[in-house]
Amino acid sequence: MTAVRWAADAVADGVLERGFEVAGVPGVVWLPERAVAPVPLVLLGHGGSGHKRAPRQVRLGRWFAGTAGVAAAAIDGPYHGDRAGGRFDVARYQARMVAAGMERVVGGMVADWQAAREAVTALAAVDADRVGYLGLSMGTRFGLPFVAAAGELVRCAVLGKFGLRHPDQLPAGLAAGPRLAADAARLRVPVLYHVQWDDELFDRAGQFELFDRLGSPDKQLIAFPGGHATASEAAIAAWCEFLVRHLREPA
Amino acid sequence: MTAVRWAADAVADGVLERGFEVAGVPGVVWLPERAVAPVPLVLLGHGGSGHKRAPRQVRLGRWFAGTAGVAAAAIDGPYHGDRAGGRFDVARYQARMVAAGMERVVGGMVADWQAAREAVTALAAVDADRVGYLGLSMGTRFGLPFVAAAGELVRCAVLGKFGLRHPDQLPAGLAAGPRLAADAARLRVPVLYHVQWDDELFDRAGQFELFDRLGSPDKQLIAFPGGHATASEAAIAAWCEFLVRHLREPA
Repeated sequence: MTAVRWAADAVADGVLERGFEVAGVPGVVWLPERAVAPVPLVLLGHGGSGHKRAPRQVRLGRWFAGTAGVAAAAIDGPYHGDRAGGRFDVARYQARMVAAGMERVVGGMVADWQAAREAVTALAAVDADRVGYLGLSMGTRFGLPFVAAAGELVRCAVLGKFGLRHPDQLPAGLAAGPRLAADAARLRVPVLYHVQWDDELFDRAGQFELFDRLGSPDKQLIAFPGGHATASEAAIAAWCEFLVRHLREPA
Repeated sequence: MTAVRWAADAVADGVLERGFEVAGVPGVVWLPERAVAPVPLVLLGHGGSGHKRAPRQVRLGRWFAGTAGVAAAAIDGPYHGDRAGGRFDVARYQARMVAAGMERVVGGMVADWQAAREAVTALAAVDADRVGYLGLSMGTRFGLPFVAAAGELVRCAVLGKFGLRHPDQLPAGLAAGPRLAADAARLRVPVLYHVQWDDELFDRAGQFELFDRLGSPDKQLIAFPGGHATASEAAIAAWCEFLVRHLREPA
């Protein structure tokens, strides 16, 4: 197992927050301050231009740990957060991904998530048999291949805001190759698939195609009015309810 | 208020079931056997060929009353159940609706639901300020106009499996007129809109059109694989969770 460096704990409102680094990837974990038995874990993949401690990540992480009694963890995406190497700039990370080659970037992020999952589930407080994933948009771009590769190690996933038709607004070099559709077909775990009904970036048809490809027998699509960046309270409640319900079931 | 005739109670597994008749409409209510305060109410509209005590109605009614602590009530649809006047036959009820004129049938069923809502919410055990509606397919056909007419009297609704494009398989005389789209636009309460992804009766485009027309600022679409008659456990759980969450909020 790759060595993990853990930072000091910060405790507030019943939540223990702890930074870590594994295989060069910076991450953070939120744990219930007190738990009588190992708790399930939700891995949180952030969106493009975000980072492991983006506001919604922190809100979700603290809600899972503080209210639902479920651990949560996040890592910085490629060229994002502490891996941006300086001031964050959208055009710059896009150019770096294109230069590296998206298939290679995806493969690297899958390995990063595998290392993070291994590091966090090695904690005595975490139940390695009850792990879920939540990530939309870029969090699906990288998270879906990770969930596909994880097999039974990840038991359920909230995905969406992505599709098989590449947006005109994004550089062609960022397009998802055939790997995404193939990975979608490999999924077997329950999936909640989120669509923004008026998404100006990923068109409905391409999002529906990705949903159709999902191999999971237990899959559902949820759609909410609004554009790509919108996340209503009802949507966030649906993600949380779905994950908690599946992760509370015995493994 | 129209006189209500109540049948005797039947109590089993913590649920009190009581038949009633109001304005010539036969209904049934399921109540928690013991409740310390008035409970919310879910009105259950059955699908075509069903009736107030169809298996899923009974299952839902008993779950709401016995597990969620919420009352539930159902009535027979036009020419359905005890209103079929003899042995139930699909072609016969369809012919009777067409002969009566669908706009008139819809208006009659809206009045029937209003009478039933009034009768059941007059019970001391029921909180008249927290009423929701659940009805798919024919239960949306008749229920959506009722919810639109009810204004604040019905606080949330689960609708779906219906659309603005009339199925080729059904008699043209059963088609929803402009009233349905107009009523959809009048809705303001939270709506969970259910789509069967592979519905062979109501096509996706027509279902999406109806969803788009809904005037509710808080609306969400959920879709599940399978044909028109399918109702997965995950779908049923989503309906119940949505209604209970909204009805538990203070009025």
